[in-house]
Amino acid sequence: MSPRCRKCTPVPEEVRRAARLLERRWTLSIVYAASSGARRFNEFLAAVGSIPPGTLATRLAELEKDGLLERRVVDSRPPHVEYLLTPRGKQLRRLVDVLQQWASS
Amino acid sequence: MSPRCRKCTPVPEEVRRAARLLERRWTLSIVYAASSGARRFNEFLAAVGSIPPGTLATRLAELEKDGLLERRVVDSRPPHVEYLLTPRGKQLRRLVDVLQQWASS
Repeated sequence: MSPRCRKCTPVPEEVRRAARLLERRWTLSIVYAASSGARRFNEFLAAVGSIPPGTLATRLAELEKDGLLERRVVDSRPPHVEYLLTPRGKQLRRLVDVLQQWASS
Repeated sequence: MSPRCRKCTPVPEEVRRAARLLERRWTLSIVYAASSGARRFNEFLAAVGSIPPGTLATRLAELEKDGLLERRVVDSRPPHVEYLLTPRGKQLRRLVDVLQQWASS
């Protein structure tokens, strides 16, 4: 650390970890779309807009792995897959609200 | 849009714009460091940790351009440069608080 450093409170590890999650492009938009009602792949595609389908598939898998989305196979004819926010993912929605307030102000 | 799309509320443009800002790697950590007292380049470097100096310089310039940081030349001997959160940047700190709560819970 520099000797001139008056205040070098290191950024806490949990903030960095959460920031790394959000830094993946489109993640916040996908969380927003999920909390606005999108469930199926094509619904996310339409809601998020210009996201490439391959990237959407990757992000959905990552968010499932991170415990923010739950992947569910719905027993319809034909069966289809839905992605739902987990309780932890719903909490993250608060962050999107704060972001929206900030962006609109 | 897919005919199967029940709910395709598009992600609002201001959310996307704000998300694009935050998706730049390290941005949230830099905002956190600034709101924790870092002002000078070396202080940001120490607080943010493993950020490459060239990337830090780029991010500081972007955050200045976006109106979140103010660059100020302090008339010391020798003169030095400080970066301070603008009122708009301080508002963004709220988002970092929500993120930290979420990451710690």
